[in-house]
Amino acid sequence: MRIESFLKGEWIAPGEGAREIESAVTGEAIALAGGGVLDMAGSVAYAREKGGAALRALTFHDRARMLKALAVYLNERKEQLYELSYDTGATLSDHQFDIDGGIGTLFVYASKGRREMPDAQVYLDGGLEQLGREGRFMGQHVCVPMQGVAVQINAFNFPVWGMLEKLAPAILGGMPVIVKPATATCYVTEACVRMMLESGILPEGALQFVAGGVGDLLDHLGAQDVLAFTGSADTGLMLRRHEGLLRNAVRFTAEQDSLNASILGPDVGPGSAEFDLFVKEVSREMTVKAGQKCTAIRRIIVPDAAVAPVIEALSERLAKVSIGDPRDAATRMGALVSASQKADVLERAGIIGQEAELVFGDVAGIAGPGAFVTPLLFHCADPRAAERVHDTEAFGPVSTVMGYGALSDAVTLANRGGGSLVTSLITRDGDVAREVVGGAGAWHGRIYINNADSMGESTGHGAPMPHMIHGGPGRAGGGEEMGGIRGVKHYMQRVAVQGSPDILSAVGGRWVPGAREVKGPAHPFTRRFGELSIGETLHTAARQISLEDIEHFAKFTGDTFYAHMDEDAAARNPFFPGRVAHGYLLLSFAAGLFVEPNEGPVLANTGLDNLRFMKPVQAGDSIAVRLTVKAKTPRNAEYGEVRWHVTLTNQDGDKVAEYELLTMNAF
Amino acid sequence: MRIESFLKGEWIAPGEGAREIESAVTGEAIALAGGGVLDMAGSVAYAREKGGAALRALTFHDRARMLKALAVYLNERKEQLYELSYDTGATLSDHQFDIDGGIGTLFVYASKGRREMPDAQVYLDGGLEQLGREGRFMGQHVCVPMQGVAVQINAFNFPVWGMLEKLAPAILGGMPVIVKPATATCYVTEACVRMMLESGILPEGALQFVAGGVGDLLDHLGAQDVLAFTGSADTGLMLRRHEGLLRNAVRFTAEQDSLNASILGPDVGPGSAEFDLFVKEVSREMTVKAGQKCTAIRRIIVPDAAVAPVIEALSERLAKVSIGDPRDAATRMGALVSASQKADVLERAGIIGQEAELVFGDVAGIAGPGAFVTPLLFHCADPRAAERVHDTEAFGPVSTVMGYGALSDAVTLANRGGGSLVTSLITRDGDVAREVVGGAGAWHGRIYINNADSMGESTGHGAPMPHMIHGGPGRAGGGEEMGGIRGVKHYMQRVAVQGSPDILSAVGGRWVPGAREVKGPAHPFTRRFGELSIGETLHTAARQISLEDIEHFAKFTGDTFYAHMDEDAAARNPFFPGRVAHGYLLLSFAAGLFVEPNEGPVLANTGLDNLRFMKPVQAGDSIAVRLTVKAKTPRNAEYGEVRWHVTLTNQDGDKVAEYELLTMNAF
Repeated sequence: MRIESFLKGEWIAPGEGAREIESAVTGEAIALAGGGVLDMAGSVAYAREKGGAALRALTFHDRARMLKALAVYLNERKEQLYELSYDTGATLSDHQFDIDGGIGTLFVYASKGRREMPDAQVYLDGGLEQLGREGRFMGQHVCVPMQGVAVQINAFNFPVWGMLEKLAPAILGGMPVIVKPATATCYVTEACVRMMLESGILPEGALQFVAGGVGDLLDHLGAQDVLAFTGSADTGLMLRRHEGLLRNAVRFTAEQDSLNASILGPDVGPGSAEFDLFVKEVSREMTVKAGQKCTAIRRIIVPDAAVAPVIEALSERLAKVSIGDPRDAATRMGALVSASQKADVLERAGIIGQEAELVFGDVAGIAGPGAFVTPLLFHCADPRAAERVHDTEAFGPVSTVMGYGALSDAVTLANRGGGSLVTSLITRDGDVAREVVGGAGAWHGRIYINNADSMGESTGHGAPMPHMIHGGPGRAGGGEEMGGIRGVKHYMQRVAVQGSPDILSAVGGRWVPGAREVKGPAHPFTRRFGELSIGETLHTAARQISLEDIEHFAKFTGDTFYAHMDEDAAARNPFFPGRVAHGYLLLSFAAGLFVEPNEGPVLANTGLDNLRFMKPVQAGDSIAVRLTVKAKTPRNAEYGEVRWHVTLTNQDGDKVAEYELLTMNAF
Repeated sequence: MRIESFLKGEWIAPGEGAREIESAVTGEAIALAGGGVLDMAGSVAYAREKGGAALRALTFHDRARMLKALAVYLNERKEQLYELSYDTGATLSDHQFDIDGGIGTLFVYASKGRREMPDAQVYLDGGLEQLGREGRFMGQHVCVPMQGVAVQINAFNFPVWGMLEKLAPAILGGMPVIVKPATATCYVTEACVRMMLESGILPEGALQFVAGGVGDLLDHLGAQDVLAFTGSADTGLMLRRHEGLLRNAVRFTAEQDSLNASILGPDVGPGSAEFDLFVKEVSREMTVKAGQKCTAIRRIIVPDAAVAPVIEALSERLAKVSIGDPRDAATRMGALVSASQKADVLERAGIIGQEAELVFGDVAGIAGPGAFVTPLLFHCADPRAAERVHDTEAFGPVSTVMGYGALSDAVTLANRGGGSLVTSLITRDGDVAREVVGGAGAWHGRIYINNADSMGESTGHGAPMPHMIHGGPGRAGGGEEMGGIRGVKHYMQRVAVQGSPDILSAVGGRWVPGAREVKGPAHPFTRRFGELSIGETLHTAARQISLEDIEHFAKFTGDTFYAHMDEDAAARNPFFPGRVAHGYLLLSFAAGLFVEPNEGPVLANTGLDNLRFMKPVQAGDSIAVRLTVKAKTPRNAEYGEVRWHVTLTNQDGDKVAEYELLTMNAF
């Protein structure tokens, strides 16, 4: 295979100095990639000018629909990617982790983009901030797409997921992407990129691809670009030091080495469901992708009394893992990605072996042309004094068991990794969970807690979910990816916009209290989704509330709370001057005032948010309602959600309640 | 004055090699600071072990109360700080910007800490994520304090605000601080630090102070520390390049050079209120702190036709600014901070003068021992071709007028600054505002929009508000500070916690749907705030809903919406099988089911959040309520807010509605 780059709309064959890529299984050369001189300055400009402009012209919902279409397209062709992936050493279930996991990430971002972002080009970040006394000057943070290119450098272990978990948030945020996978498995990524380009779903310039080295790409990045990296700490440090990146304060996210731990809670003993769960999770994390996962468990931290039983149970389980050609259906663990990776893993296992005793496996690996090794399990008898077991990442099926006394020692040991992506904890005890999160949270990007209650649905220690952040402090790179919309914000600039309510309404596309009201041609409930304007407002007549109303409502609903029924008790209450109307009475009467009864485009009241009662209403007071279109979000081809700002005022014009009402309105 | 450092609980006098500090007004030496060898490794360890541990043992509310106490303490003593500040060249109104602004920032963080954060040690970041089908495994992001020290390096221009705007979020987040102000004005900062230490409000080790150089401080920072910097791009780059910071992925935030712009909207002409506002804001930004503000307007971007009128009006206004001894009440603009700063400003003004014509002021400055200069206004006739006016920050009362044709040109010119802290826009036109935010947002951390509607309450182009982020991409440093609770998160680690509902309830201190219910000894409405447990639950009896109920409710409230009244019309609706009960009827009946009527600790229903109607209820159906204590937040000495999770189910056990109810409960 000749693996091509795709830059400025053209496929470019390997050039002079291209590198041969070997099969992990046979050791034979199977592909050629890289070499030649690529026009990186041109590619960056092409991304910014073509892809960026095209993506920014779309809304978040448009981009979310593209992600969904890509996911569907890839899902129909994933077997082709499986087939290519065997040569990386991976088994079918490894492929699923990589390829189905990547496609799943696209689906989640497509769904979150539709549900959690507006059908607009500006994302509102957090709520309004009132900066003046009367609300005539306010603040609203918004996020807008950065105007550069996202350069995404990925590791060899997940040629598909690694690309898609970075690509999905960038595209959703409105940034074009240049993907640069690790060369060792770039043939799988290239095939996936070809599919995406062939689909014609993305606009021109939104996706470019570099096989082999990046040349002078980094020299062309500036203030509007983003560099996201997954790989080794050494490469990460090289990128961090790059003068141009530093000088231009280029956004940089890294996800690198990580000495992840798994802690067995002090409440869990052999024979319990949680003990078996622990052994199963650790064993799986050691052997999936032959341990080539940035989230794999490198340190197994168990109560002193559990050290021997854990080693015994783990060894028994590992012994049953059949190792061999990943195309063989009986194979449970395939090969490392390359001979050089095999040598590296065995060398690092040797370093760990200086501080820990080998209790399972063969430190010589498995002889032959493929990059096969056995799982290697160590036991470190004095993990407090040890150093290397806490800082040596052998990127293969290698892990070390270590004992702890008090739970605080387990936390200290977990933190000795110097910052990691994930620590897991198997416990049933909420106090144990709280202590571990409190003590170890600052050192770990994710804490995965599992027990018999959750194990039926749990997603695995090693699986980063698109909903949750992936990254960690210190050794893990200090970065953060995914985490739902958080990950999209890495590709947008947050801007603090300050202005009057009218100005903020225009900028954010949401009516802001205090902004101009729009008078519609008819009752807003008679107007279809597309006809309603932001700010369109109905003012109702007033209705007086009598003591009979309050008593009647109490009797009818059964709500005879003393504040409504007992003048003296109500007056003793710090909030009320005497008997007051029920809040639900006010809501119900308000609906009676603003509802248009006849069949029309309003299909249903689906919910209500942020209701606050601001002033008591007593018998003799009257209320009137102001109902204003605050925001509109299409939901499907037939109807969309309208968010109404509702204010109830009394006869003095004082606000007595405020809330947001949700209706579904036909298009 | 001998300016001392405060490290490891002791004041340390200036040592060998200490630097003399001159008065900006007289040029005479007034203070001595720095020199000697400071034990930075010891100070870092002291902060982490003493201050960090003590702060982490407190809740967010505890820390917020400390910030408020500090604000009150400083507010009572601020005249002493004013008095010291005159020698920095600042006028009384400049002092207020710095000192009152800093104290105000403490007050805002104290208030936000109480209102927007829990009275707990873990902050919940965003909502629950359901990761399994049945809700037995979920995700919740939490933030916990980082376990290191926050090193905060500040600029000379705001010796008090610069410290407090960084210190407040760090302390609230639970991190100890080492403050290092610029040496030129460190005597003001030192006095403020002394006050804070004398107050005894902060725990031991929470605040240390370095006058003069930082020695080898940076070499001791690691994965749990934070470095926050405000100052020049050159110093910023030096910090960025520091090998230890890069190697340990130390969190770094910078706020540095910024060529801020102010745009006059195309809709604004001479003679209008907005034109006068523009001239006033620009003139003020040029002269406050003698233009030594990172947010000052360096580029004045106006429609071509407005160039001459703006220059005329600005010159007229600047001519009235009396310059001199800041102690003189008639003085409107004081001195630059030092003779070397004066030389630097005039040199840079000379660079700008190569591309722009001087239209106001004297490029020689004002002769004499003090660091006085006049405002310098330039006009750049060809700003598209110019380079230096877009990248030369003369950190004094220096600004350049430039004209634009189309609004898109104004946006392009504003973005030529390469990333800035703030751009302002004076316009009445929402479309203009939207175009500027869309086009320039990616390059500016803040966009300040003002007009006649908002000018009575507007906070000023140059004033970073604690509610809003302060920072910007590219040249401005790529950092972000403040922005309310966002700024606190810079001092915390975000952790993705995954687990069962019970585990997440224990970790987050909030009941999670699906978690264990706690059976209380009596109806929860009879229990005081302190007695209620998280998870305490009431199950009510069921109530059947009849057609008479629906018709009666419709008639009583006036809500005769067709879905409740007209069987055929309701059945045509995609959401309903036929006539359904009003949502407000369900809420009202639910209250009737769960309310305990007698006078007791529940004082009021204050609000309701996140109500969703999930399934229609028809005549003949019945509903029952589950009411669970979800969260508790103390509000004052007498009562606290209880957030109840409420679920309504029908006779088949299906959820028909879900919401959160807020009550105030007596302690």
